[in-house]
Amino acid sequence: MSILVVGSVALDSIETPFGKAEGVLGGSATYFALSAGFFVPVNLVAVVGADFPEEHITLLKKHGINTKGLEITKGETFKWKGKYGYDLNNPETVYTRLNVFKNFSPKIPPEYKKSDVVFLANIDPDLQTYVMKQVEKPRLTACDTMNYWIENKKKALLRTLKKVDMLLLNEAEARELTGESNLLKAGKSILALGPKKAIIKKGEHGVLSFSDNSIFSAPAYLLKTINDPTGAGDTFAGGLMGHLRKSGRFSSDSEIRKGIVYGTIMASYAVEDFSVRRLTSISYSDIQKRYYSYKQLTRY
Amino acid sequence: MSILVVGSVALDSIETPFGKAEGVLGGSATYFALSAGFFVPVNLVAVVGADFPEEHITLLKKHGINTKGLEITKGETFKWKGKYGYDLNNPETVYTRLNVFKNFSPKIPPEYKKSDVVFLANIDPDLQTYVMKQVEKPRLTACDTMNYWIENKKKALLRTLKKVDMLLLNEAEARELTGESNLLKAGKSILALGPKKAIIKKGEHGVLSFSDNSIFSAPAYLLKTINDPTGAGDTFAGGLMGHLRKSGRFSSDSEIRKGIVYGTIMASYAVEDFSVRRLTSISYSDIQKRYYSYKQLTRY
Repeated sequence: MSILVVGSVALDSIETPFGKAEGVLGGSATYFALSAGFFVPVNLVAVVGADFPEEHITLLKKHGINTKGLEITKGETFKWKGKYGYDLNNPETVYTRLNVFKNFSPKIPPEYKKSDVVFLANIDPDLQTYVMKQVEKPRLTACDTMNYWIENKKKALLRTLKKVDMLLLNEAEARELTGESNLLKAGKSILALGPKKAIIKKGEHGVLSFSDNSIFSAPAYLLKTINDPTGAGDTFAGGLMGHLRKSGRFSSDSEIRKGIVYGTIMASYAVEDFSVRRLTSISYSDIQKRYYSYKQLTRY
Repeated sequence: MSILVVGSVALDSIETPFGKAEGVLGGSATYFALSAGFFVPVNLVAVVGADFPEEHITLLKKHGINTKGLEITKGETFKWKGKYGYDLNNPETVYTRLNVFKNFSPKIPPEYKKSDVVFLANIDPDLQTYVMKQVEKPRLTACDTMNYWIENKKKALLRTLKKVDMLLLNEAEARELTGESNLLKAGKSILALGPKKAIIKKGEHGVLSFSDNSIFSAPAYLLKTINDPTGAGDTFAGGLMGHLRKSGRFSSDSEIRKGIVYGTIMASYAVEDFSVRRLTSISYSDIQKRYYSYKQLTRY
């Protein structure tokens, strides 16, 4: 009963209209793992360099994350610097230094192979397929992707999509992947590519989820303070998959909807402060309280 | 048990990426009245010129709208030409010919004076106040506004806001009126200006509603076809006020939430075709069916 996540662990430098942070903990697998870790044990697979601060590993472990699959290798950790304007959905990348992440070849430790939920964060679709070959009969597989892979490795991405149960991506990516500007049409087109579920993330405008016989639209949680949107999408995925793994009802439409709400709540915490600061300062009962508050915001 | 609406009746020329329409029925009061007319009788106050086609008046009457307050005067009807790109929230105005609307001085017919719900569509805030002086103890008053009045007649607008129960406006207007870019803060700031309810319309991203002790977030209905967003906001207001007048429970939080959902459903019909075509081809049972379908879209 655990989740495997494969993705990046990075050191981010971030500037937003509300402040900045230098060389802080980031990466898709980091956000996902910290978020899902509130629900179930998480097995992390990623690579960092020799410069990666020990305190970050301690923090991950403290949050119930198994770091046996976190490879530490010679060289520097993946570094990303981004700058956000008031449109918090579209950061400008100042630099991307892949460093040790460039030659990342995810090795799944034997004790991880029985993970029954697998999340393939945004990495090369060939690596996503390679990970799937290493795990034994997972009950739920999901992946994320990005415009770069849609534009440069579409065939490999389409192969991955034939094999995963669920695709998560943002609205611009959904439009680019399917060629449909209308999101209702885009969502249905994704299902035709293979996944049984398509989840389109719209940032501050919420989430749309599609399956053959059900569409769910969830607004975002309303916040007074949004300091740094980095990692919101992966944190969302962590809440969704974490809830689904905890409930064990992977194909229940109502559990998927609840999971999307948990994902929304987790993402709302992620964006309130820089890096993983807020996410690592809350408790499970905070999450429950905000879930209740979201109910008040959306019931009718 | 009827609603009074004061606003514009116009002839629109509209171009969108999906088609165009020339000299078709439009105007804030038109969309509002046709929408609210599905719920309760509507008393219309507006002005048109001698060129206004008789068939439009027949159409309004056929939809249960009292046109006694529709003044027909010498000159030309208000004409607006707009062009939408793929961002359907921000049309480019090709021209605005106020014509007879320029000297509009709303006269409320005696039989309208007891209307217990009043909607002041987007007109000069001084005229909004002038209308309020002519009606006897309405139980619910609401108004809309626009950036032009915020920029050019702010004092008059603030006087209006001290007297209405509810303000409806779009997100850019809410930010401009309050100087708050965060919508949660903007909504609360509006309440401090007088209205007991603030409704912020976000177009395809749904609606936020604020009162002292309740915030409601409703996503938009998901559509395959959006041909012309003109009038969506006024159609929304018509569904909301129509439902509230029908229920008679003007200050019930749960009826306001249901009203917002009805408004959302009405707006979804408005945008499916140009002008009022779709809005005038549906029945009350279509509205109920779509309400149910919206429930499926949002429940969890």
